[in-house]
Amino acid sequence: MPIDCKAKCGNKAALKRPKTGDALCKDCFFAAFEAEIHHTIVSSRLFRRGEKVAVAASGGKDSTVLAHVMKLLNERHDYGLDLVLLSIDEGITGYRDDSLETVKQNRDDYQMPLKILSYEELYGWTMDRIVAQIGRSNNCTFCGVFRRQALDRGAKLLGVDSIATGHNADDIAETVLMNILRGDTARLRRCTNIRTGGGEDSIPRVKPLKYSYEKEIVMYAHYKRLVYFSTECVFAPNAYRGHARAFLKDLEKVRPSVIMDIIYSGEQLRFKDTAKKPVRGICERCGFVSSQQPCKACVLLEGLNRGLPKLGIGKKSKGDRMIAQQNQELALRERANLVKNDF
Amino acid sequence: MPIDCKAKCGNKAALKRPKTGDALCKDCFFAAFEAEIHHTIVSSRLFRRGEKVAVAASGGKDSTVLAHVMKLLNERHDYGLDLVLLSIDEGITGYRDDSLETVKQNRDDYQMPLKILSYEELYGWTMDRIVAQIGRSNNCTFCGVFRRQALDRGAKLLGVDSIATGHNADDIAETVLMNILRGDTARLRRCTNIRTGGGEDSIPRVKPLKYSYEKEIVMYAHYKRLVYFSTECVFAPNAYRGHARAFLKDLEKVRPSVIMDIIYSGEQLRFKDTAKKPVRGICERCGFVSSQQPCKACVLLEGLNRGLPKLGIGKKSKGDRMIAQQNQELALRERANLVKNDF
Repeated sequence: MPIDCKAKCGNKAALKRPKTGDALCKDCFFAAFEAEIHHTIVSSRLFRRGEKVAVAASGGKDSTVLAHVMKLLNERHDYGLDLVLLSIDEGITGYRDDSLETVKQNRDDYQMPLKILSYEELYGWTMDRIVAQIGRSNNCTFCGVFRRQALDRGAKLLGVDSIATGHNADDIAETVLMNILRGDTARLRRCTNIRTGGGEDSIPRVKPLKYSYEKEIVMYAHYKRLVYFSTECVFAPNAYRGHARAFLKDLEKVRPSVIMDIIYSGEQLRFKDTAKKPVRGICERCGFVSSQQPCKACVLLEGLNRGLPKLGIGKKSKGDRMIAQQNQELALRERANLVKNDF
Repeated sequence: MPIDCKAKCGNKAALKRPKTGDALCKDCFFAAFEAEIHHTIVSSRLFRRGEKVAVAASGGKDSTVLAHVMKLLNERHDYGLDLVLLSIDEGITGYRDDSLETVKQNRDDYQMPLKILSYEELYGWTMDRIVAQIGRSNNCTFCGVFRRQALDRGAKLLGVDSIATGHNADDIAETVLMNILRGDTARLRRCTNIRTGGGEDSIPRVKPLKYSYEKEIVMYAHYKRLVYFSTECVFAPNAYRGHARAFLKDLEKVRPSVIMDIIYSGEQLRFKDTAKKPVRGICERCGFVSSQQPCKACVLLEGLNRGLPKLGIGKKSKGDRMIAQQNQELALRERANLVKNDF
């Protein structure tokens, strides 16, 4: 027997909300999903009237839903925002070329201007060529570092006040987990922030979907019949992150609140003052935001151009360093013959 | 071809150390394993000369190795500690009855006095009877709460200065992970502490094996031919914790430092001042340490005795509460008709 929509609208329920377990009709699900994002935007003061905002658009489910909902809320609640789409073309044949077609469809459907910036024009390298040169072990490092900077550069070109990205609740929970597993307290410190960057010379990034469950984003796109591109990147994914992702999905089946639980944990965290905080500055070479001199993008690019693609790749984890340090202390103590009489 | 021991002792390597990957001979592994625990004890000032210390002994690998190494280091480095074994008999047929035989063997082998305290004498209930009454869904909650208090009561009876428990590095990493997954910031705050408790009326607990890998503990027990009891508890294990444990073991295969990485993360964490800290006090009913009135053990015991075994069981996670709160705020806003004009 069909059950009633829990919102008491008089309709029959058509789905079970993944986040709350509530049985809802389609329209009440849309309303709840959109109202939550509106609530996030308002309560975190993500935007101000009159601002120009770039929606980082990949053509995937998250950014497609983000663009759709941003446009809808901007009109419904009269945010007064000037919305544009910003896409990065990494130069990955069979993946980004196809997904950019989806973004162009979004541009036409939502009547939002679209700017596409390519790695080719910014760095002189496509990801296809980078992978041909370095193989498939560290390619995601290059792609991530270049994309981060490319978005900054695109945002500067467009003169926007902020960049809205499609990071959803699952992404954030996964990143909290990854950073715990890596002992990366510098990243842990900022990965649950709904707004990052935004000092001088840096364009703030905001995450309106921070509390939206991935399952609900997929459900929303499905019932709204939004056009999105769902192929995985053709280059090998990060195995370590894959473990964390699979683990989270398993836990979510048992307890859907686990995603919010992890975000809550991340939001509550503070670190000992001894934990090193990265200091944001400007790369002297390229002039873009960086906490290192030169910035990571410039180091990686130099490695590529000089045929030394290992430059800037890989570092020991905190745990590795703790183990090495313990070993070293023990060796020193033994050498000083202190072990037997210092209790 | 057999390779040389990395410690340059002249012997051939017999094993690969799980924590460091070093190829070592048996004797150099023993030396490194013991020296690390000594280093932990000394650098964290876990004990003072003349103190009486209870080793919490279950007969399992961790506490057997702990008792063995504590006795050995106490003699080798002249700690001047008075060591005793303290065991809790939960009353689990086919599990604790057998493992207590192992503890008695430890008592004879190491010539350490042994005190056994039972749930039966302390609470009037064995775990067998508790499970017969409440089934197998929350039995681990009862067992954990009762054991924690039972150790305190045993320690008081023995007049010891501290209780050393066999928690190893894997246990601690797993607990950090579990608390992140549960959004339990109160427990996260203290779960990496090498010493807990120890205010007035509370006997401190210390974890000398905090940095010892489980694999190395098993290896040490194996090569030292220590007698230990390796059966899992007959009552159903915690499924959620089982997930976390399996996940960690998978990660450890790829990257052994993950255990130290997670402990490092946990040690660096601090929390916003808004995160509630439990205040330790004394239960007015039983007089033992508790952050609640009455203490959890008394609440659970009352439930058992009154035939209301759900008393004190289950609480909503932080994530559940966040979801409920967001729902509530949305409902309030809609009712106040604020949604459309508050941007």
